[in-house]
Amino acid sequence: MEAYRELEGRFKRLALVDEAQAILGWDWATMMPEGSADARADQLAELSIIAHERLSDPRLTDLLNEAEASIDQLDDWRAANLSEMRRLWLDASALSAPLVEALSKARSACEIMWRAARSENNFVALLPTFETVVALVREKSQARAAAFSLDPYDALIDQYEPGMCAAQIDPIFDDLTDYLPEFTDRVIDHQRTNGSALSFERAFPVAKQRELNELLMGFIGFSFEYGRLDESHHPFSGGTPDDLRITTRYDETDFTSSLMAVLHETGHALYDRGLPKIWQRQPVGGALGMSIHESQSLLIEMQVCRSAEFIRSIIPFITDVFGVGDPALTEGNLLRHVQCVKRDSIRVEADEVTYPAHIILRYQLEKLIISEELRPKDLPHAWREGMLEFVKADPVDDRVGCLQDIHWYGGDFGYFPTYTMGALGAAQMFEAAKRVDPSILSSIERCDFRPLYDWLSQNVHSLGRYLTASELIKRATGKKLDTTAFKTHLKQRYLSN
Amino acid sequence: MEAYRELEGRFKRLALVDEAQAILGWDWATMMPEGSADARADQLAELSIIAHERLSDPRLTDLLNEAEASIDQLDDWRAANLSEMRRLWLDASALSAPLVEALSKARSACEIMWRAARSENNFVALLPTFETVVALVREKSQARAAAFSLDPYDALIDQYEPGMCAAQIDPIFDDLTDYLPEFTDRVIDHQRTNGSALSFERAFPVAKQRELNELLMGFIGFSFEYGRLDESHHPFSGGTPDDLRITTRYDETDFTSSLMAVLHETGHALYDRGLPKIWQRQPVGGALGMSIHESQSLLIEMQVCRSAEFIRSIIPFITDVFGVGDPALTEGNLLRHVQCVKRDSIRVEADEVTYPAHIILRYQLEKLIISEELRPKDLPHAWREGMLEFVKADPVDDRVGCLQDIHWYGGDFGYFPTYTMGALGAAQMFEAAKRVDPSILSSIERCDFRPLYDWLSQNVHSLGRYLTASELIKRATGKKLDTTAFKTHLKQRYLSN
Repeated sequence: MEAYRELEGRFKRLALVDEAQAILGWDWATMMPEGSADARADQLAELSIIAHERLSDPRLTDLLNEAEASIDQLDDWRAANLSEMRRLWLDASALSAPLVEALSKARSACEIMWRAARSENNFVALLPTFETVVALVREKSQARAAAFSLDPYDALIDQYEPGMCAAQIDPIFDDLTDYLPEFTDRVIDHQRTNGSALSFERAFPVAKQRELNELLMGFIGFSFEYGRLDESHHPFSGGTPDDLRITTRYDETDFTSSLMAVLHETGHALYDRGLPKIWQRQPVGGALGMSIHESQSLLIEMQVCRSAEFIRSIIPFITDVFGVGDPALTEGNLLRHVQCVKRDSIRVEADEVTYPAHIILRYQLEKLIISEELRPKDLPHAWREGMLEFVKADPVDDRVGCLQDIHWYGGDFGYFPTYTMGALGAAQMFEAAKRVDPSILSSIERCDFRPLYDWLSQNVHSLGRYLTASELIKRATGKKLDTTAFKTHLKQRYLSN
Repeated sequence: MEAYRELEGRFKRLALVDEAQAILGWDWATMMPEGSADARADQLAELSIIAHERLSDPRLTDLLNEAEASIDQLDDWRAANLSEMRRLWLDASALSAPLVEALSKARSACEIMWRAARSENNFVALLPTFETVVALVREKSQARAAAFSLDPYDALIDQYEPGMCAAQIDPIFDDLTDYLPEFTDRVIDHQRTNGSALSFERAFPVAKQRELNELLMGFIGFSFEYGRLDESHHPFSGGTPDDLRITTRYDETDFTSSLMAVLHETGHALYDRGLPKIWQRQPVGGALGMSIHESQSLLIEMQVCRSAEFIRSIIPFITDVFGVGDPALTEGNLLRHVQCVKRDSIRVEADEVTYPAHIILRYQLEKLIISEELRPKDLPHAWREGMLEFVKADPVDDRVGCLQDIHWYGGDFGYFPTYTMGALGAAQMFEAAKRVDPSILSSIERCDFRPLYDWLSQNVHSLGRYLTASELIKRATGKKLDTTAFKTHLKQRYLSN
């Protein structure tokens, strides 16, 4: 028990460094003046080094061995905490220091070049740097594969959602690949028949949009005593469970774009805020990986906030903030706005029906890149082919093609599938929640999120990392993750009216 | 040389942790939601502990000993850097880790309580926490006294301005105590005869005030590529040399209050920005203590920006931003506003004539608290007595009495005298600068701060900590710090018209 207790102390200190990094990262994206980017990069790197040094401390290894030798003295949560500690240790020790440094430098360099390459539509200029990143990521995948006894690509996915692997993803993505193309055609036909949304006539001033966003964040359960809403180039939810920092950007011609992004990030933030307080700053008290995190944001955004029930309930607040008289600000028209389905080459603007195709394309390509079956230089061509095949959209150039996302250029391979696994999780969880407590939907219609939040808290948030992602979904929904609920949801929302 | 070089690497890493703390501290005061104060206190404490651990690393001691043994191989700046490293080492090793942690937690707790206690005028509620802080500060003063061979109170002053001590301050404060009461009476009479300032008729919207503030910050030389202006309860200048974070607060009935505060903080920021770039993140490349720092802010605010020359030069910008037609917005009337002298119980609202009395009171009281001649519980009474004696103002309650300043409740004893030592330094430096380059004043009348900045850069900013505060003042002004220039300035400004 003594070794375990000392470990708790050490991991608490590690968590504090992570928290400092989270706030500095938020500041980077929202507040930092341009000239201090290099200085901030140095500060963040220093905090990473501190964390890495602590995880590589030989004393920590001894303590883990000691604590594991008497793991039967620990209750279930402490035992789970100890195994999460070991996982973090394994994660830190899997990679050699030179590889970590080389990768960190290469991804920084590539990310910076990517900004220019994308705006200039110049993939070739980026290629040598990108090839370096890919080579190093492959090296990383081998090292993690050896440490965790996984296949190389699975060893990359595992960074973002421990335990998730291609064998779980493949049948799910195959199912969607079979189902979605024809379904999408039907939805597009159906929406064409029903008529498209009226454009908004008025401008939506940023201050008014912020007012509406904050009001609705509050309805969903976000507490401004423990968080903020600010602006950044790309919306995100950062900070710490006691200090949640949501960001958005504003389009004065369409308030729904910022609003839906904010509600999405609020879903992430509620998860972080709802993590088990008594395990705060311990590994077992953290959030699960990105697929579960995304399930929480998509449950709020896609399942709840783009529903007819929610749109109906917020109309009075919208007209209260923006005024009455715009024929585009009616329930029916707003619903057409937020449920519009179309084939487009940009992932971040995609609706929930076409989104999986964007992900499946990326998933196929990154698997081939890691297995060396696809060379980086052949990516633009493969992207365009795949785009036509999966999404049935034709990117006019690489800017809206293989250069649109930062992930790979920043070294993140294995991340993309978590988006769609999260969308399926959201559908399956929301279905289960409504089954257990049928008052959830009627409460949402009254802008009362308490019943939904109670279910989420009990079945997801309060569990931290006590269960794995698969265990959590099985416990919360009664079965392992599949496409059934997602398909039911899509049919119900997009073809039943 | 090898030991010295390793030390440079270690101190650079320390500086990065300090920089992270500086940004988190700024965030605390400007952005942080209320509910995360405890979490932030823990994060800041952890970074302090990291810094302390590194400074207490036995390997660092060995390196310092090694480098000092061959100090004659180092050039002057490196030798100065090494002795600053030793001072930091001494500073850290003087205090035990438990004391550092206890102090950090106690001051955070006391600061948080102070906010409530002040707004509720409830000193008694704060007392137990304040007593803990005082006890720990006393402990700290003993520990530093032993390490630096200083008297306990001097050991506290020394934290804020190394080398400054009561023996230097006492004759200066005695001189001011003799001189100022009668001088203040004469100024108040004189201003009464000349007539008081017209009140402003219009409101000054915050956005307009910010616009004016940022414009004038720019004139003085502040670059928004490396800094920001935000709002906080108390104006301050924080951040790092590459990321200067100035804050202010706004009074819509009087724009001069925020403007002068911003120009003051800009003086601080210019000093930090002007520190020697090649010594950045090394101890010798830092700013000197708070009396020199305050000399830079007061030189800009008091010597320059409250002068007739500056007020004359900015009238066009003021009317440009706020519009014409307000009879209160004339040169003569604005000058009366920014040069108005009156006896009042609030330090931060005091003019430069009565300010020293506020400081001398605090200096006397904190000496007594540290020597245990004054018990914390007797502070409210002693404060009121001293206020009547030194400032000749009667605080109606503790809110405007002993609860008005955060310093002591945040554990800062020995800090107050640096304000007045800074005011004297500002007067002495500005006099010297104008003597060396008579174009300084005429340039300021044209909103051209370059000649002044050049002098400051050469004589103060670019020197970092290469000299001590006393050496720097002597080199810059030709003599050690005294009250002559300050008194000359006061007579010239307040009685000559």
